[in-house]
Amino acid sequence: GRPLVVGKHTLASRLIVGTGRYDTMDQMRDSLAASGADCVTVAVRRERLYDREGRNILDFIDGDRYTLLPNTAGCFNATDAIRAAKLGREILRTLGNPGADWVKLEVLGDSKTLLPDPIETVAACRELVDDGFSVLCYTSDCPVTALKLKQAGAASVMPAGSPIGSGQGLLNINNLRIILEYLKDDDPDYPVIIDAGVGTASDVSDAFELGADGVLLNTAIAHARDPILMASAMKHAAIAGRQAFLAGRIPRKLYGTASSPTEGVISTRPYGSQA
Amino acid sequence: GRPLVVGKHTLASRLIVGTGRYDTMDQMRDSLAASGADCVTVAVRRERLYDREGRNILDFIDGDRYTLLPNTAGCFNATDAIRAAKLGREILRTLGNPGADWVKLEVLGDSKTLLPDPIETVAACRELVDDGFSVLCYTSDCPVTALKLKQAGAASVMPAGSPIGSGQGLLNINNLRIILEYLKDDDPDYPVIIDAGVGTASDVSDAFELGADGVLLNTAIAHARDPILMASAMKHAAIAGRQAFLAGRIPRKLYGTASSPTEGVISTRPYGSQA
Amino acid sequence: GRPLVVGKHTLASRLIVGTGRYDTMDQMRDSLAASGADCVTVAVRRERLYDREGRNILDFIDGDRYTLLPNTAGCFNATDAIRAAKLGREILRTLGNPGADWVKLEVLGDSKTLLPDPIETVAACRELVDDGFSVLCYTSDCPVTALKLKQAGAASVMPAGSPIGSGQGLLNINNLRIILEYLKDDDPDYPVIIDAGVGTASDVSDAFELGADGVLLNTAIAHARDPILMASAMKHAAIAGRQAFLAGRIPRKLYGTASSPTEGVISTRPYGSQA
Amino acid sequence: GRPLVVGKHTLASRLIVGTGRYDTMDQMRDSLAASGADCVTVAVRRERLYDREGRNILDFIDGDRYTLLPNTAGCFNATDAIRAAKLGREILRTLGNPGADWVKLEVLGDSKTLLPDPIETVAACRELVDDGFSVLCYTSDCPVTALKLKQAGAASVMPAGSPIGSGQGLLNINNLRIILEYLKDDDPDYPVIIDAGVGTASDVSDAFELGADGVLLNTAIAHARDPILMASAMKHAAIAGRQAFLAGRIPRKLYGTASSPTEGVISTRPYGSQA
Repeated sequence: GRPLVVGKHTLASRLIVGTGRYDTMDQMRDSLAASGADCVTVAVRRERLYDREGRNILDFIDGDRYTLLPNTAGCFNATDAIRAAKLGREILRTLGNPGADWVKLEVLGDSKTLLPDPIETVAACRELVDDGFSVLCYTSDCPVTALKLKQAGAASVMPAGSPIGSGQGLLNINNLRIILEYLKDDDPDYPVIIDAGVGTASDVSDAFELGADGVLLNTAIAHARDPILMASAMKHAAIAGRQAFLAGRIPRKLYGTASSPTEGVISTRPYGSQA
Repeated sequence: GRPLVVGKHTLASRLIVGTGRYDTMDQMRDSLAASGADCVTVAVRRERLYDREGRNILDFIDGDRYTLLPNTAGCFNATDAIRAAKLGREILRTLGNPGADWVKLEVLGDSKTLLPDPIETVAACRELVDDGFSVLCYTSDCPVTALKLKQAGAASVMPAGSPIGSGQGLLNINNLRIILEYLKDDDPDYPVIIDAGVGTASDVSDAFELGADGVLLNTAIAHARDPILMASAMKHAAIAGRQAFLAGRIPRKLYGTASSPTEGVISTRPYGSQA
Repeated sequence: GRPLVVGKHTLASRLIVGTGRYDTMDQMRDSLAASGADCVTVAVRRERLYDREGRNILDFIDGDRYTLLPNTAGCFNATDAIRAAKLGREILRTLGNPGADWVKLEVLGDSKTLLPDPIETVAACRELVDDGFSVLCYTSDCPVTALKLKQAGAASVMPAGSPIGSGQGLLNINNLRIILEYLKDDDPDYPVIIDAGVGTASDVSDAFELGADGVLLNTAIAHARDPILMASAMKHAAIAGRQAFLAGRIPRKLYGTASSPTEGVISTRPYGSQA
Repeated sequence: GRPLVVGKHTLASRLIVGTGRYDTMDQMRDSLAASGADCVTVAVRRERLYDREGRNILDFIDGDRYTLLPNTAGCFNATDAIRAAKLGREILRTLGNPGADWVKLEVLGDSKTLLPDPIETVAACRELVDDGFSVLCYTSDCPVTALKLKQAGAASVMPAGSPIGSGQGLLNINNLRIILEYLKDDDPDYPVIIDAGVGTASDVSDAFELGADGVLLNTAIAHARDPILMASAMKHAAIAGRQAFLAGRIPRKLYGTASSPTEGVISTRPYGSQA
């Protein structure tokens, strides 16, 4: 299938994985490998780059294998997020990593639910775009905010399926459908990536079956009982969901021989259309 | 991972696929290959074995590659189903196919919804078991009927996720959980296979994530816009779901930092237990 | 609105309530009154008719106010259920209560889940109908079994929304829709009563909005923190749901100005049809 | 039960109904009466106050019976909404209606989905609060925006269950639970009113059962086949849902005798707590 294109980057795998919350650096490294991802996201706030033994997470991520996507996790206002984005750019430029030109923008509204702040996110996105960044914006599933972010120049809008680390999967299919309809109207290649909320493999497939272009996840792998096996599950789930979307699923009916499907809207594209 | 064992048969893939409803025999053959299945089920009523041009479906299924699972599709009472099962055994014995000793029992309640008839199914199961068959029983998601079938000697109970061809996926997770709890209590290796209702890839993953041992499907591939691509999606979805089940998913919470999960029962086994 | 007619009985309220599981007889009596029901069901096995202090439950139910519906709760095979039905008839004849001619048939499959046994239920229904009873049959949400019960002469089929006492509401809307379609086809007045599984008021409304003719419940009131207040909630929920069904709800859409509804099947009757 | 208190207003009914989209003024008047509401909301943009025959909607609403809640429907930015709010105040002052001191603030993000604009809503709320208004803020189900609105001084936050006129009910229970937890933490009487998305009676009960203090709806009544009957359904559904919330529902379990409930979080208050 076609690769995922975001800004200047072309990704063979449509799964982007995080690097936080692992028990050990070795476990992280092996999980990244098992996930099949070729892009990994790293929090660039200094306190997150080093583990308890003072080792730098970047020493455990093969820069030849993975494109790094710096993120602004842990920032609660536009100012902090912009500072973190610039720090990430500086670090990656020093490393010669091609991820220096993009950033995953994450501006949180509070420390309890880790839900995004729409106002600060839009403000930070505008400023980072002006500063030349290719911005991938983490946001809620609010279609109005999603559209504002695209209009602000975001290279990708990344709606949450559910709160970070909640494992609830996609809670509001209706809003995600509206976002896909909004952002891809007259611009079908605009990348929409579901970020946050994945709990298990079928959640990843659900996202692709709706028409999402990519999925970003972290806790569902890092906190599984067996992270490496779960990483492999997620790899297969991404392929399964994307292929199922492209293959054009059968309609849902009350029973197989019923004359009409139970839902008029199965996906954002008409049944049988070419993706 | 461990293979799926049903009766004397050991299957490398946990996906069993049907052979009906394809546009052409070639499309069927290529879809079977793409699905990764090593077991395919074939209706043995004479009118279903031949296509419009008089070609026998069995000539398009490589007997060295696939174990055949004869099924009694199209039967509406125990007598007809038993007759069809015996015919299947006879045909497969003639072909020297190892599938001669087992049968997928399907006794339908009516021709409109294609839902199974619990009373006729239990009666037919008893008689086929007595006759030496290894019986895989298609049934509804009713836990009481499922238990009766196991007690009648079924080699596997195969509850429907939703009506045949409906594409609704798993409609009653609660009943499926009770079935898994009932049938695997003190007998964790007893094979439970979800049969019927799959619409798309994530439905297959859902079944395995619940703890099912296998999934049987047909229409979701055969009537997809691109059956071969959908077959590949199903292959990956089976691996994804099974691995995710074994890997032990994270609990669902209201938000990531919440102190207690929103559901006490995530799977039929305690979180973190070995499968 | 029109009353609910089952056999010879005409009920002003479409809510039928049970009499078990209350802390005290007084609490039961007051909850029945608050529910607005004019029909209450009573288990007729001897051990259930008396409380710890040896008082007979029937002394706390005003026979002038309520029609009694004897039930066979606690029976696990057809023989026991038939015996209990006859005992109930005898008791109510002695009391001169008009409920002597009908029975709520309940034949359970096991003591853990309290799910109904389809085979024993059909057998008992046939025999009780032959014996002149007006039989209201508790059953699962299996459409094939529901149709068999109607064909066996049941005065009403009473599918479970979910297991007795589970409080899960209506778990399989699809099956309930098929049951309504099956049983009311060419016979729109045939009474279908949802029995078991109600957890709270909205579950009762859900049942009526689907097109059910009545709802029977017990635990959701008896085990609520405040049973009398919950009984009142259920009274209003039954009215709300029935009126909403008759009033013809708006279709579901992705958003209000969308051109097509998201579901083709909102109820078992076309939108806007007269009930 | 206790009345709903918002700002200086005390409402006997917890249902607030709109006045738009009716076929005729008479139908509107009769539906308002049947709903049992004592507060009705009216759009104050001039083009919405008059019907095709030039009659003023306010002439059909008995000012002695109903408290009017002016709303800013049809406004797409803060400036327009503020202007509409002031116009409403002026009109109601002239009429001597007590609704002059409050406003339902609605600032929409686009004309297709009628979803609210979080940034413009927060800005308008701040300015209206500064100007002395008691502001009831229509918003999405985003908890971060909801909290910002409360912090901006909103007298009530009114999250949408689903898009205006969509009839989808409550799409994201998880977010609504977080909003209730956020806004009522240390302030249990703070009024949260579900506004928009109701399709039928059970949706209203769902909202109250979650712990909402009120529900505002319009299309579900005005566009029902029989608006007056649906208005009555909504009246009962509000009572049913509120009473069920106060009565403390039973927990959900896999089956009735299961040892643990399937969900740890049934409501925003511990099971059995006093509301």
